[in-house]
Amino acid sequence: MKDVSVAILGASGYTGAELVRLLALHPSFKIKVMTGDRKAGQSMDSVFPHLGGLQLPDLVAIDHVDFTSVDAVFCCLPHGTTQEVIAALPASVKVVDLSADFRLFDVDTYAQWYGHEHRAPELQKQAVYGLTELARDAVAKARLVANPGCYPTSVQLPLIPLLQAGLIEAADIVIDAKSGVSGAGRAAKEANLYTEVTEGMHAYGVASHRHSPEIEQGLSQAAGAPVLVSFTPHLIPMSRGMQSTIYMKARNGAKAADLRARLAAVYKNEPFVRVLPEGVVPHTRHVRGSNHCLMSVFDDRVPGRIIITSVIDNLVKGASGQALQNMNLMFGLPETLALAQQPMFP
Amino acid sequence: MKDVSVAILGASGYTGAELVRLLALHPSFKIKVMTGDRKAGQSMDSVFPHLGGLQLPDLVAIDHVDFTSVDAVFCCLPHGTTQEVIAALPASVKVVDLSADFRLFDVDTYAQWYGHEHRAPELQKQAVYGLTELARDAVAKARLVANPGCYPTSVQLPLIPLLQAGLIEAADIVIDAKSGVSGAGRAAKEANLYTEVTEGMHAYGVASHRHSPEIEQGLSQAAGAPVLVSFTPHLIPMSRGMQSTIYMKARNGAKAADLRARLAAVYKNEPFVRVLPEGVVPHTRHVRGSNHCLMSVFDDRVPGRIIITSVIDNLVKGASGQALQNMNLMFGLPETLALAQQPMFP
Amino acid sequence: MKDVSVAILGASGYTGAELVRLLALHPSFKIKVMTGDRKAGQSMDSVFPHLGGLQLPDLVAIDHVDFTSVDAVFCCLPHGTTQEVIAALPASVKVVDLSADFRLFDVDTYAQWYGHEHRAPELQKQAVYGLTELARDAVAKARLVANPGCYPTSVQLPLIPLLQAGLIEAADIVIDAKSGVSGAGRAAKEANLYTEVTEGMHAYGVASHRHSPEIEQGLSQAAGAPVLVSFTPHLIPMSRGMQSTIYMKARNGAKAADLRARLAAVYKNEPFVRVLPEGVVPHTRHVRGSNHCLMSVFDDRVPGRIIITSVIDNLVKGASGQALQNMNLMFGLPETLALAQQPMFP
Amino acid sequence: MKDVSVAILGASGYTGAELVRLLALHPSFKIKVMTGDRKAGQSMDSVFPHLGGLQLPDLVAIDHVDFTSVDAVFCCLPHGTTQEVIAALPASVKVVDLSADFRLFDVDTYAQWYGHEHRAPELQKQAVYGLTELARDAVAKARLVANPGCYPTSVQLPLIPLLQAGLIEAADIVIDAKSGVSGAGRAAKEANLYTEVTEGMHAYGVASHRHSPEIEQGLSQAAGAPVLVSFTPHLIPMSRGMQSTIYMKARNGAKAADLRARLAAVYKNEPFVRVLPEGVVPHTRHVRGSNHCLMSVFDDRVPGRIIITSVIDNLVKGASGQALQNMNLMFGLPETLALAQQPMFP
Repeated sequence: MKDVSVAILGASGYTGAELVRLLALHPSFKIKVMTGDRKAGQSMDSVFPHLGGLQLPDLVAIDHVDFTSVDAVFCCLPHGTTQEVIAALPASVKVVDLSADFRLFDVDTYAQWYGHEHRAPELQKQAVYGLTELARDAVAKARLVANPGCYPTSVQLPLIPLLQAGLIEAADIVIDAKSGVSGAGRAAKEANLYTEVTEGMHAYGVASHRHSPEIEQGLSQAAGAPVLVSFTPHLIPMSRGMQSTIYMKARNGAKAADLRARLAAVYKNEPFVRVLPEGVVPHTRHVRGSNHCLMSVFDDRVPGRIIITSVIDNLVKGASGQALQNMNLMFGLPETLALAQQPMFP
Repeated sequence: MKDVSVAILGASGYTGAELVRLLALHPSFKIKVMTGDRKAGQSMDSVFPHLGGLQLPDLVAIDHVDFTSVDAVFCCLPHGTTQEVIAALPASVKVVDLSADFRLFDVDTYAQWYGHEHRAPELQKQAVYGLTELARDAVAKARLVANPGCYPTSVQLPLIPLLQAGLIEAADIVIDAKSGVSGAGRAAKEANLYTEVTEGMHAYGVASHRHSPEIEQGLSQAAGAPVLVSFTPHLIPMSRGMQSTIYMKARNGAKAADLRARLAAVYKNEPFVRVLPEGVVPHTRHVRGSNHCLMSVFDDRVPGRIIITSVIDNLVKGASGQALQNMNLMFGLPETLALAQQPMFP
Repeated sequence: MKDVSVAILGASGYTGAELVRLLALHPSFKIKVMTGDRKAGQSMDSVFPHLGGLQLPDLVAIDHVDFTSVDAVFCCLPHGTTQEVIAALPASVKVVDLSADFRLFDVDTYAQWYGHEHRAPELQKQAVYGLTELARDAVAKARLVANPGCYPTSVQLPLIPLLQAGLIEAADIVIDAKSGVSGAGRAAKEANLYTEVTEGMHAYGVASHRHSPEIEQGLSQAAGAPVLVSFTPHLIPMSRGMQSTIYMKARNGAKAADLRARLAAVYKNEPFVRVLPEGVVPHTRHVRGSNHCLMSVFDDRVPGRIIITSVIDNLVKGASGQALQNMNLMFGLPETLALAQQPMFP
Repeated sequence: MKDVSVAILGASGYTGAELVRLLALHPSFKIKVMTGDRKAGQSMDSVFPHLGGLQLPDLVAIDHVDFTSVDAVFCCLPHGTTQEVIAALPASVKVVDLSADFRLFDVDTYAQWYGHEHRAPELQKQAVYGLTELARDAVAKARLVANPGCYPTSVQLPLIPLLQAGLIEAADIVIDAKSGVSGAGRAAKEANLYTEVTEGMHAYGVASHRHSPEIEQGLSQAAGAPVLVSFTPHLIPMSRGMQSTIYMKARNGAKAADLRARLAAVYKNEPFVRVLPEGVVPHTRHVRGSNHCLMSVFDDRVPGRIIITSVIDNLVKGASGQALQNMNLMFGLPETLALAQQPMFP
């Protein structure tokens, strides 16, 4: 297996660190460059001491990077800052962007939700939305993959096949989502202090979270018509983990068993997605640290209504793991490379 | 103020201990009897060392209690065991029952959800459902109050006034509820070990939780027609706290502002219920240890839909605090007695 | 009881908020002024929503306060900023300072540990070190009380009586201390994020923590000779709570039973300090939210050695609770006023 | 690489599950048998759903196992039950025992601490104490390895080389140790409920913990004379992680720098042990999920005294990871096989 030179842009955040953790077991991806503008000049083990045992390059400022010897870029920069950076990369470099910058196909929708014009609309047209299991072929051929958001991953994996199969109504879908705190990143904010978060919970971004249009884009495509969702995220006192509890109406008298069978068929050969048997409830702790997605389908006690719960690790299948899964595909490698680590429990 | 002799039945569990904590500041309720069958003979400070500074009677077996000198009983026994115990109490004793045993007016519904015939159907007819703010007068005159469940409290306080006012549809109400672990009690179960609970979450009792009929009973009464709800509880890694995120449709073009105004009017003089201003999100940690309920109303981004979040401390307003609030009323005392402690944060 | 007008300086931090929580139950101390320079102009319920049910003045900048109508000041400002503020207060105001600024009698020691000359050395001479149980009379007469640090409180309450009685050696005392995260305050620091703190622990300030000279000052006074201690604090993933595990040598063949008897005699009438019976281990959770200190004494398995563990809530007996205890005394009030709340568990 | 057939006895506990997690990445160890008497007949994914993606044998009762086709046994049974089980295994099977049953060389010491005569004293004589880095050659030749306890691992790795080098005094060593809750296992006990553990801490087994004689055995051997230690473990609200904070006196004027240099030399080629540079404090979270041990040495502020902190993951280097490290050696394999996973943070 030929070595692939990898750069991680924005390696001083949690998704960057998580990529390093995963790549430590990769047989051919070699980390050659790591950037972190505010922490440029620091060693990775001073920024993330848990990675102290690896031989890693020091963090540098992005302006100082020579990308000519880089084959693959994982871009973990904040949204809004990413478009120009990626536009400036050599055409030979393959890119997985973990930010939101290339996820929305419609640059007007982008502008509406992110407050500024898209700065690389041409590049946007080439970007492939990398929900791997449902876009594998396109990802394999892509030069630029927009890695899905964590909430959209947990929602679209169960809902897209059901909408495509006409098993559920597209209207009045309610998504009550719960996330661990690592999704908020490593920035020092009062609201994310241990003392502010532990032993309590709350909703946030009610009716206004930026993952709404991303979810709606995918569901609309699957339904063949515009879909609006009711989406409410909650912050849960845990570092990792994400659950979406999704409420919907079945179509044409379909029951949970029908939906479960459909999902099981769609995902039956997938290494990372598991549809649980009747009555088994997924826990976020059962996927911690892994690239797994677990989902379960229930008949609601209100006739004709369905409840689905799906869980992922927001930093793995919801970010760095899926990014690596995509990059493996883009280099023609088995997509499970360096992603075979089992969940860590307890 | 005349002293009232209080017995706590089932004082070795969390709701019993919470009553002791609250009653320590009460000017007239004096704890004379505490039962705990499995721990009979033990001192309270060996069972709950945090209460070691108080002068408390030792735990006794319930069969050994002479109730003739008892004025008030808080019954914290498990459901199913309570009916015969309460039926055997002297008529002079006032009772607040924290179990589910007297909450359902219809004994057939009880039998269906709890798996056995009701053992005190006559007594059931006298029981008042003690959602204090909405049943104050009846509580004040009651001899037996069925203290509401934690989830039903968090759901009914916001929804009943809105259904009564015809501001929301009774159909397709979705309740996504989240609870701290103390709701599961102190029984030693593998599933509730620290290692099994921390840093993860999951749904449970999907479409089958026993609080469903209790919620539906209250909402049906308010709507004047049978209501079925979609209700999914989740276990959150925190000891205390409960949030219900409730999704519904407005009627007749009502907006969040209309609903908020209605709730604010209903609760404007209530010491324990606060309707938050537009855009303010309640956190469970803001009510920890207190008898408070906070609620907030949002327009969903799907036109015509509404989202309400409400929070309580499941052990206080969701159990022991509301029980004390009710008992204060039953003895003609100010209902805030011993309930003025502020939430504890951080 | 006559009303006392209270000002809280630095009310936007955790110790300030904790004072507000406690004072809500006080019959005569009325909060008239709260300062918070960075948050001046904000309402307290926007800064600390858990206190939203109280009628509180908005936060103001300290420069805008008229202290002529203030009777009592709790000063919760960071160390180093406090000396000049207190020096500028009217002589009629009684002050409890929760910072470290007046704790060290020797201003040279202060300068050495805090990096600058003391700015109010004359005032320092009037300050009383307010370890209440061991300085009650002096506190009652004081105008300015230096409220002890949290670690020093947990260490000195057990050790001072034993050194005074000659029951333990002053040399080679090892103090392994553990603190909850609220001790670090509410400043937004990466190191105190939930994700950085939860599910892990570490030592900090090894051999260099600023509470060392404060502890040594008290122990030296008790021993009648200079004492150096080995003191290592640790950060534990919990919001509140502090434990000191203290290792020492007994003198003259004294056993744990002798030490326990001595401590029990010293504290037998104290409302907030409890010496536990042989074999009973104190937990920090048994004092959470209360002004209690629990301690226990053990014979080590190494002959002649003793182990003592003591626990407090760092925000209550380790800060705001002891501050209120002292202020009660300074106004001739029962020292337990507004401090009778029981620990909150679970 | 030839396949090795592996049996895990007691696979329904945390150390068993952790072995399964690690072995999932092993190229030649294949799990053929898993026992769990109370859960015999259940599938592993019903007992540990996080391992649901693996092809694993169902749990069986130990009496039903045919060991003739088994090459390697990891024994995760409770102490006291293990001796007869291992004595009954075919001589061809290599065994790593994670219980305490073969750790103490002196069967009288065993009897004194465990309350019954040793049931396989002949086998005890063959057992090698598997603190891998300090016993590598003996482990490689062993048929039966007694895997060290978690606390003893964290203590002996730093202390044994220093005692051997005569750099520290053997008297008056104080070990203040802190452990995550997974060390208590998966048994359903009230004391280990989430609600009983979270947001608090306490000491346990003060002066009487069974790891004391194991630690003393190793230190005595290193010192060449009997050593007694002062050892106090604490339970910390975290699932995984262990820290020992160790207080001692240097000999002959040695400084922290001398001790650090010695340890760095001893461990310089070790893949799992890292001696941190001056001033760097190890956190338990920096080793979570990995087989790493980090240690740091500090001069105390009391002249001549030294403080060492060392951290491990109690389930990995403190149990299953070290067991696998040993088994790799016993089969002539690279000892890092399946142990290259990096720590998981956050």
